Amino acid sequence: MTTSFGPSYVRAIAPYIAGKPISEVAREFGLDEAKIVKLASNENPLGMPESAQRAMAQAASELGRYPDANAFELKTALSERYGVPSDWITLGNGSNDILEIAAHAFVEKGQAIIYAQYSFAVYALATQGLGARAIVVPAVKYGHDLDAMLAAITDDTRLIFVANPNNPTGTFIEGPKLEAFLDKVPRHVAVVLDEAYTEYLPAEKRYDSIEWVRRYPNLLVSRTFSKAFGLAGLRVGFAIAQPELTDLLNRLRQPFNVNTLAQAAAIAALNDQAFLEKTAALNAQGYRRLTEAFDKLGLEYVPSDGNFVLVRVGNDDAAGNRVNLELLKQGVIVRPVGNYGLPQWLRVTIGLPQENEAFIAALEKTLATV
Amino acid sequence: MTTSFGPSYVRAIAPYIAGKPISEVAREFGLDEAKIVKLASNENPLGMPESAQRAMAQAASELGRYPDANAFELKTALSERYGVPSDWITLGNGSNDILEIAAHAFVEKGQAIIYAQYSFAVYALATQGLGARAIVVPAVKYGHDLDAMLAAITDDTRLIFVANPNNPTGTFIEGPKLEAFLDKVPRHVAVVLDEAYTEYLPAEKRYDSIEWVRRYPNLLVSRTFSKAFGLAGLRVGFAIAQPELTDLLNRLRQPFNVNTLAQAAAIAALNDQAFLEKTAALNAQGYRRLTEAFDKLGLEYVPSDGNFVLVRVGNDDAAGNRVNLELLKQGVIVRPVGNYGLPQWLRVTIGLPQENEAFIAALEKTLATV
Repeated sequence: MTTSFGPSYVRAIAPYIAGKPISEVAREFGLDEAKIVKLASNENPLGMPESAQRAMAQAASELGRYPDANAFELKTALSERYGVPSDWITLGNGSNDILEIAAHAFVEKGQAIIYAQYSFAVYALATQGLGARAIVVPAVKYGHDLDAMLAAITDDTRLIFVANPNNPTGTFIEGPKLEAFLDKVPRHVAVVLDEAYTEYLPAEKRYDSIEWVRRYPNLLVSRTFSKAFGLAGLRVGFAIAQPELTDLLNRLRQPFNVNTLAQAAAIAALNDQAFLEKTAALNAQGYRRLTEAFDKLGLEYVPSDGNFVLVRVGNDDAAGNRVNLELLKQGVIVRPVGNYGLPQWLRVTIGLPQENEAFIAALEKTLATV
Repeated sequence: MTTSFGPSYVRAIAPYIAGKPISEVAREFGLDEAKIVKLASNENPLGMPESAQRAMAQAASELGRYPDANAFELKTALSERYGVPSDWITLGNGSNDILEIAAHAFVEKGQAIIYAQYSFAVYALATQGLGARAIVVPAVKYGHDLDAMLAAITDDTRLIFVANPNNPTGTFIEGPKLEAFLDKVPRHVAVVLDEAYTEYLPAEKRYDSIEWVRRYPNLLVSRTFSKAFGLAGLRVGFAIAQPELTDLLNRLRQPFNVNTLAQAAAIAALNDQAFLEKTAALNAQGYRRLTEAFDKLGLEYVPSDGNFVLVRVGNDDAAGNRVNLELLKQGVIVRPVGNYGLPQWLRVTIGLPQENEAFIAALEKTLATV
């Protein structure tokens, strides 16, 4: 549609393509909702923890009131959990909100933002929404090439997005490499380290990014409650950064961006260690099962440290959409990633054992026939 | 704090000042939360409707999943209720989100946005956040001067915010006047008509702004579920505009900006006519009581068509904060509006009868002593 409204950079944006909800697939393909398996949006297959459900129920009596704009209790809980003062924390309506606010806070039209090829779609959207210039650094083995990202920094670069683990590829950068990178980034360039999937890392891969925040005033760590914490439907994420960056974010943050129930549920989920451990164990088990099946089918996949696996389902550029359609017809929703420049691949969220089996069976059937 | 990060227009923003939550006032003044009366944020004193509570409870089982990014069911309900196609509707995380997205969609750095003196703080914040130029048109009798707003349009004006009724003053523009205004706005200038309080209008003041949306491709009507519908804590608002504008908003909208529970609750609240009628009746009754008390105390107030009244509590510029502090000590939270350039005034939300009485008693006591 041609339009006379809005800046040209806004008109040029292609909107985000979300995973199809179960209800929509049921409508489109005439399927029974109860039989549909959704492994499309990297959600926690265990759902919301019971601890968070109880906390939410207690908070449900005051929903005629606005949320606490300063989120006193949630910030206090995060402050204790991560060992930083409350004024180092910014809350977001999911970490999507954090990423958008950060870009808006640090970058203006015409300045540059660096991110890796095959990284989260919101980096590109946030860049486009500002009329900023994207410097997309080619991936190496589907992951970030940190040296190339450093080399790509220009005088007008104001922000670098780094995702670890990366979505949609699942690649991981080891802590010492990331630290060496941060050490070389010029101090006037902000780094947003998107750790949406960090809770899935095995113990031996963990690193202390909060310690880095203390050391690097240009570093912002972004986290979410939508993945391992199981609260995707409630919308809450957060950023940790020194007050200089945090203060800028809070000037742009919508005061009531995090709803009352999300604040209450997040406090409970944050400290539900048993749920996190169960989530990680289920994920590790599911990862083994899926990759075993891919090996058996002779399918290439990218080793993943997230709660999903990127798998190549064919060698032609129609393969992803073709296989996806056949899976949908069988009631299995995964994510085609053609919009990421990966048209031969699908991204599959690791589900419950029976969901993984349903996906594997549908995939086997599809590959045998298409 | 001096900083090297971020555009100068972001650094210049003074963050939004929200109404103090009850818990915060209890902490600060050592009061019992149960005895505090909050009339500060134009919330519905009836709270959330029971119909919405039931709908929310039913939707609470799937919170590990992301919300429906396209909000199929809520958009269908809004489409039926307001008689417009679904693709004329944009959902927001409260109407705050709609106002921010609209400004971002229509205006770029250096272009101008027009709004009235004494109108909602978010218009200024959205303007500042874009590095856009604010043209603030002086109010007449605390309300919009539409002729002056028309005369203020410049070549680089891209957006006009009009609030009806207006917050924080409660002033109202009659339908025919607004229609005549819309007729004169050049077609390349978008108008955001913020109708957050429209459900409080008595029958004789109602007008059909959705009909205007059909006629004016540059008009966007913004509504909220946070006021009469009683869902402030859940965060949901919406815009109605022709596809040309709606399409731009959807390019910038965060895909999961409206959480799952808000979507479910809003559908129920939307069609709970009994709750809306009860709300309006309670509000009209409370308005009579408050203004009667103001008359008796000899206090000037601005006649209001919202769920709040702006009242002048003194003739010196410290009056608002002074009286506010005394009210807080007595456990009554209202809104000082010095940040709106109204330091002699307080904005009081119309509450339940007993809340109104508590406020009046505390106000009488305060004015007798300060």
